[in-house]
Amino acid sequence: MTSALPDRAFLDQLARAAAAETLPRFRTAGAVANKLGEGFDPVTEADRASEAAIRALIKAHYPDHGIVGEEYGSEGEDRSHVWVIDPIDGTRAFISGLPVWGTLVGLTVDGVARCGFMHQPFTGELYFADGTGTHLKHDGGAAQALRTRQGIALGDATLFTTSPALYAGAKRAAYDRLEASARLPRYGCDCYAFAMVAAGHADIAVEPGLAPYDVCALIPLIEQAGGVITRWDGGRAEQGGDVIAAGSAELHAAALELLNA
Amino acid sequence: MTSALPDRAFLDQLARAAAAETLPRFRTAGAVANKLGEGFDPVTEADRASEAAIRALIKAHYPDHGIVGEEYGSEGEDRSHVWVIDPIDGTRAFISGLPVWGTLVGLTVDGVARCGFMHQPFTGELYFADGTGTHLKHDGGAAQALRTRQGIALGDATLFTTSPALYAGAKRAAYDRLEASARLPRYGCDCYAFAMVAAGHADIAVEPGLAPYDVCALIPLIEQAGGVITRWDGGRAEQGGDVIAAGSAELHAAALELLNA
Repeated sequence: MTSALPDRAFLDQLARAAAAETLPRFRTAGAVANKLGEGFDPVTEADRASEAAIRALIKAHYPDHGIVGEEYGSEGEDRSHVWVIDPIDGTRAFISGLPVWGTLVGLTVDGVARCGFMHQPFTGELYFADGTGTHLKHDGGAAQALRTRQGIALGDATLFTTSPALYAGAKRAAYDRLEASARLPRYGCDCYAFAMVAAGHADIAVEPGLAPYDVCALIPLIEQAGGVITRWDGGRAEQGGDVIAAGSAELHAAALELLNA
Repeated sequence: MTSALPDRAFLDQLARAAAAETLPRFRTAGAVANKLGEGFDPVTEADRASEAAIRALIKAHYPDHGIVGEEYGSEGEDRSHVWVIDPIDGTRAFISGLPVWGTLVGLTVDGVARCGFMHQPFTGELYFADGTGTHLKHDGGAAQALRTRQGIALGDATLFTTSPALYAGAKRAAYDRLEASARLPRYGCDCYAFAMVAAGHADIAVEPGLAPYDVCALIPLIEQAGGVITRWDGGRAEQGGDVIAAGSAELHAAALELLNA
């Protein structure tokens, strides 16, 4: 049971269980704050309830797998199969009403991310990679295969980062070099930016200081769509750190060279 | 006929006619660019076809009204009723695959914006103000009344701007003062940010150098939800310029004071 990857129906089930906890709490902060005062925090509640729902399903279906999550920590992290969960990536988007946050779930096998998804419940978009490729499924729709955009030079690239303010010192200088070389910089999207790279709408997503749960789900999304995602030093990104994804190997190499210049 | 404001059914009709031109072209740029090369530009096509559809409906229903649009210029700008159209506000979001662009239509009566809407066809959200208040209607759903968030101090405010890079010189210093005083700055949303202020999910939206068609639709959305929107000098914003919207009069005054310090 543990050797095969879970099928897409199970990924879908995880996404729906998480959405049942997050979506009803989205865009309620203002109204609720007025009613209940400071003690109530919809995003924290949504984060915890969503991760709990995901963990319960994994334990029921794959009791011998390990789990790492943002909210409830690690269990069985030394097992060959480990699920890595960020119940709400893009908390700031969530609390601002923007539909560009997502629920991230990835599965690593012997340390390498092999399948995973990003789900945005408000738009109903499930971006998933199941080992056979990366796909997008809208609520109630059929899955469509995704491919990254190929043949884009750095000077023609659309580049995403959450905010330049997240970089400091030499890292900021490196980021600024990269941004100055791209055609169109865009800010503020967290995981949604990586989905846009996987889907061929954008070319580069770059972030500093990611945790494993910020990135494990995104690695198969990028790789199985034809892109490349690594740390800035070129190593695999499963353990997080400074991460860059690009739609093609050539673009990734060009960006990495600038970051490390 | 010209003295009454159009009803919400007509605003809805305009939004749907525009969406029929924009949505089929959204997220096609990458695929199409690979097939057809440089000559094809989905966003320009969507912009033009959307504005043409809106203009045709207005002319059929209100032949004695004037029209100002981003793509096709002005006709009858001196009439008492003038429609102001931006067929795709947030072109950069559109070409990056992000669902935070919108179609903007406003109606000014003797120079004051009295009704209007922002429509995001991918998420199916229609934010509209019809003279009786600001509402949100999802595709196929009922309209719900919106209110801005009240009682938020500047230090607790969520603030949106498209990008700090759009400000230069003294304007940049003024923006930086404002951003440093807010709790959570967010970038990259154009019209969608103003809708979040109208809906009470965010508190301030600030933009430099807007054209009339960037802002006329947003003025009634903010005002009829309980917020305040003006130029940075405190004057009305129908003619564009540097614009700031806030959820409450107190927050607007505090922000304006900082911008003009």
